Amino acid sequence: MLEDKNQERTSLAELGEFGLINHLTKHFKMYHSSTVKGVGDDAAVISASDKETVITTDLLVEGVHFDLSYMPLKHLGYKAVMVNLSDVYAMNADAEQITVSIAVSNRFPLEAIEELYAGIQLACDTYKVDLVGGDTTSSTKGILISITAIGKANKEDIVYRNGAKATDLIVVSGDLGGAYLGLQVLEREKQVFQVNPQNQPDLDKYTYIIERQLKPEARKDIPKLLEELEVKPTSMIDISDGLSSEIMHICTQSKTGCKIYEDKLPLDPQVISTSEEFNMDSTMIALSGGEDYELLFTVSIDDYDKIKGNPNLTVIGHITEENEGMNLVTRANQEIELKAQGWNSFNKE
Amino acid sequence: MLEDKNQERTSLAELGEFGLINHLTKHFKMYHSSTVKGVGDDAAVISASDKETVITTDLLVEGVHFDLSYMPLKHLGYKAVMVNLSDVYAMNADAEQITVSIAVSNRFPLEAIEELYAGIQLACDTYKVDLVGGDTTSSTKGILISITAIGKANKEDIVYRNGAKATDLIVVSGDLGGAYLGLQVLEREKQVFQVNPQNQPDLDKYTYIIERQLKPEARKDIPKLLEELEVKPTSMIDISDGLSSEIMHICTQSKTGCKIYEDKLPLDPQVISTSEEFNMDSTMIALSGGEDYELLFTVSIDDYDKIKGNPNLTVIGHITEENEGMNLVTRANQEIELKAQGWNSFNKE
Repeated sequence: MLEDKNQERTSLAELGEFGLINHLTKHFKMYHSSTVKGVGDDAAVISASDKETVITTDLLVEGVHFDLSYMPLKHLGYKAVMVNLSDVYAMNADAEQITVSIAVSNRFPLEAIEELYAGIQLACDTYKVDLVGGDTTSSTKGILISITAIGKANKEDIVYRNGAKATDLIVVSGDLGGAYLGLQVLEREKQVFQVNPQNQPDLDKYTYIIERQLKPEARKDIPKLLEELEVKPTSMIDISDGLSSEIMHICTQSKTGCKIYEDKLPLDPQVISTSEEFNMDSTMIALSGGEDYELLFTVSIDDYDKIKGNPNLTVIGHITEENEGMNLVTRANQEIELKAQGWNSFNKE
Repeated sequence: MLEDKNQERTSLAELGEFGLINHLTKHFKMYHSSTVKGVGDDAAVISASDKETVITTDLLVEGVHFDLSYMPLKHLGYKAVMVNLSDVYAMNADAEQITVSIAVSNRFPLEAIEELYAGIQLACDTYKVDLVGGDTTSSTKGILISITAIGKANKEDIVYRNGAKATDLIVVSGDLGGAYLGLQVLEREKQVFQVNPQNQPDLDKYTYIIERQLKPEARKDIPKLLEELEVKPTSMIDISDGLSSEIMHICTQSKTGCKIYEDKLPLDPQVISTSEEFNMDSTMIALSGGEDYELLFTVSIDDYDKIKGNPNLTVIGHITEENEGMNLVTRANQEIELKAQGWNSFNKE
């Protein structure tokens, strides 16, 4: 798409850095009275508050975290915001502001960066988050996006990774493995396209898992739901690197073990059918496939009645004493030690 | 340096992302009781406060903002923090926390990243700032550093860019142009080295300006000094892109003009002598050379007695009505319109 010579193209050098920031951010709405000053000064200003501030940041690099040959820039902008908001919601906090920095090579025309920001703006509008600052610079290669999200929560509501206790139930929102399988489908179509550019792929039966990869949604609704259910998790984390890796973070920081039950893992029918098509084990995908941006948390067993049967939540196991280890209980009732096969970007090159 | 085969080298892939973050951040001290939770959860947590929060972020890209052939990694880490703290001080606020994200190609061994973090740690210790989060990922080319700084100030103390009024005095801390000329010296030495690697450069007479380039200091002392002098600036900005560009930001946002007096510009003797050596005009360098990280601010003329004679501060002109334009008054008493020749990274490639 970016190589299409008929597109209208405005060079980034024409606008310069200040012009570019103004141009890209001038139509963003501000939703929070806490945003005293947004883009346009040395720093943004956020009003004083009797709530705690949570801050998180993530960096996405072209060729490492995303491939523009199947990731439209608007989706990339949206997803980059989701990745960060997900971390705020995983603290049981609400996100209020973001800053966005991009480094982009001159091969991208202004119109491409506008697409990226259209996705960022859609995310801000959908999730009611204010863009308050950032930086825009050139890169020597490709695009890189660095986002910082700022949220608020009452001190007593914040949930860390280290509060799980033996007998606590392990709960996950939504379903698992879809984003990873969506990526496999897109990678396969890319290879088909390279061999035969005239091929028209029929992706209808993969709609859900492709959307999980290209347009994930952060679970803003879960902290709200938990408040309504009057449940405060004992620990929480978002699933960006795969269930195994995340539950191991909770157990390590809480000094506990865990048992996860294979037959309880929530899988969408498209995940099951596509796993079979790719000759992959759907349990492995649920455990190790990343980028689902669901929330994983633990609750006291006393709260079971409050969460059971909720369509958004699935109990997948329970916390154990540390010396019992971290294990998967298979359908055949065998215990297998969990391994973190989360994604390591340094192995990618 | 990075190509030295005798150095001890540990590959980043061995450690992985989690291992790397832990390894790099475990020796950082926390200075602020406001830092409730630093590195190690989905987000950092900063305690509630009756002060406003200021947030700023900057992105530094290898090959665009710095050249590792003369910028040691430790200095790079230090400078990357300074760039951000400078923006916080320019709000008349104090910096308390930073997050640091880096993207780095596998060609860098762990020991190189440790050097970078040693510089970040030195900056944190010197400026009493807490590292509370970040992200570490691989890049397909070179190093990129994205830092976000978080500061605090009383609501009534915050100084924006838009408060300057006609007759206000224009004041600058320190001296100007050194960082730019330091860069010219380093660029020249790099070219000499490429022709003759055995040449031993004598850089003694450039010590000050090279240090201004390689190890700038953010002016944490100026907000404190102003408080002691009982002066609240009417507007303030830090000088990262050159005096012209910065005073134009103040005037544009304040809807004013200005007069800057050439004979008042504070220049170090090394700036004057090195300008002559390079056949460059020292006034142009003071106006357009970036990266000095001094503070530029305006004060009411009623505050003149409080600041005059202070060795840290120089009055370089005054604010005028908007219709008088933004001008430099030369030594020959001619008025020349100021032009923003600040640095534009998109013109660099």
